Amino acid sequence: MRRMLAGVTTAAGIIIGDEILSGKFSDENGPFLIKRLRELGVDLSRLSVVADEMDEISQEVRRCSEAFDLVFTTGGVGPTHDDITLESISRAFNEPLELVPELHRILLARWPDGPPEPALRMARLPRGAELIWEGDTRFPLVKVRNVFIFPGVPYLFRRKFEAACSRWVGQAISTCRIHLHAAEVDIADALSQAQDRWPDVSIGSYPKRNDGVWSVIVTLESRDEKALREAHEYVQDSVPDTTSA
Amino acid sequence: MRRMLAGVTTAAGIIIGDEILSGKFSDENGPFLIKRLRELGVDLSRLSVVADEMDEISQEVRRCSEAFDLVFTTGGVGPTHDDITLESISRAFNEPLELVPELHRILLARWPDGPPEPALRMARLPRGAELIWEGDTRFPLVKVRNVFIFPGVPYLFRRKFEAACSRWVGQAISTCRIHLHAAEVDIADALSQAQDRWPDVSIGSYPKRNDGVWSVIVTLESRDEKALREAHEYVQDSVPDTTSA
Repeated sequence: MRRMLAGVTTAAGIIIGDEILSGKFSDENGPFLIKRLRELGVDLSRLSVVADEMDEISQEVRRCSEAFDLVFTTGGVGPTHDDITLESISRAFNEPLELVPELHRILLARWPDGPPEPALRMARLPRGAELIWEGDTRFPLVKVRNVFIFPGVPYLFRRKFEAACSRWVGQAISTCRIHLHAAEVDIADALSQAQDRWPDVSIGSYPKRNDGVWSVIVTLESRDEKALREAHEYVQDSVPDTTSA
Repeated sequence: MRRMLAGVTTAAGIIIGDEILSGKFSDENGPFLIKRLRELGVDLSRLSVVADEMDEISQEVRRCSEAFDLVFTTGGVGPTHDDITLESISRAFNEPLELVPELHRILLARWPDGPPEPALRMARLPRGAELIWEGDTRFPLVKVRNVFIFPGVPYLFRRKFEAACSRWVGQAISTCRIHLHAAEVDIADALSQAQDRWPDVSIGSYPKRNDGVWSVIVTLESRDEKALREAHEYVQDSVPDTTSA
């Protein structure tokens, strides 16, 4: 069970795009976010894939922005009709879209006679948006309140994320695993007692089936190394037939 | 952009588990649900991964149950302290947990002197729960209102899903793709016009980078074959340099 700890940075990821929900493309951005936030020591508390629907996006952004420290969105920021992330975030925070002069200048460099309307869509941001220029991408990363707005193309998302990620470094999390040849029901009491005794350690138990044989993987994790060690020893001593992994 | 069509079944998936958000295990159930619901002709409208937190789960279940026809949850139904899905759903619908005699009997067969408390947790369901006995699993699939409650272990989830899936068959969706060697900004107007003209066709456009070269994949999909064919032809004729795939 996850514990919300003082001083711990929490985050939500919002993957925007029908193409994921319909199975046309498999989601690469969610797994990347899970992996990198973990490495950075940030607690990902929620990850959702939402459709290209204004209400869905704006409600999800508003809820996550209120509940968590950081929100990462990917997708829906290009020039086509199905790119409605900026408009949805504008609606979520009631901050109207405004043409941003710095972005307009980038477009004018390419279209000196005036950028076409689809391109202009990318230069209109919710009022109060910040531009983050780290990295060598042509367009900056956009931030509105605590929401970082990334493109959905995995290559661009990863590049922009890596360029800016030093700002999200949190406190490292340590993990250990115990592989048990036991039924979950027979170890439930011991795990429950360990969880009560070391509330800062997250303890999880996951049955696994391999070649028709069931076993259980118990995971313990914490930012408190001492508590983690103690809980690990306690669990090992109080459950049957353990093989640490 | 997704269109909500009359007569179309919509669904939400809720993957419950810290182990996914923390990257300890990668999510197999979300991708399975995406693939199978698509094959069944059901519109997956939302997929979320939520933590093992009572409020998170119960709020997500309540919201999805109201907004969509079907809700599928996976995870959090075992006997250990971090298995809180049934209790969270009980809270979402304000239906107290009650020991279900049919499930109690299953447990008594294994523990004639009385099942241990962790096992009993799995036999207490929100009031009004239905049991679905399809398939040869020891425990039935549990349904509360429009929410189908699956175990998180991928092997068990898939098995229970396949056993019950005939009840979710919807109307098939057809898809086609056009691979364009063009910039998204140059085709945006044509796609937008096609979308306005054929509202029952979902049109998406996805930039792709391969060996440093950008291209765009345009996808069209619909339950209306005629509209799909017309929109496909229109897009092919009105954008530059197309290679159908």
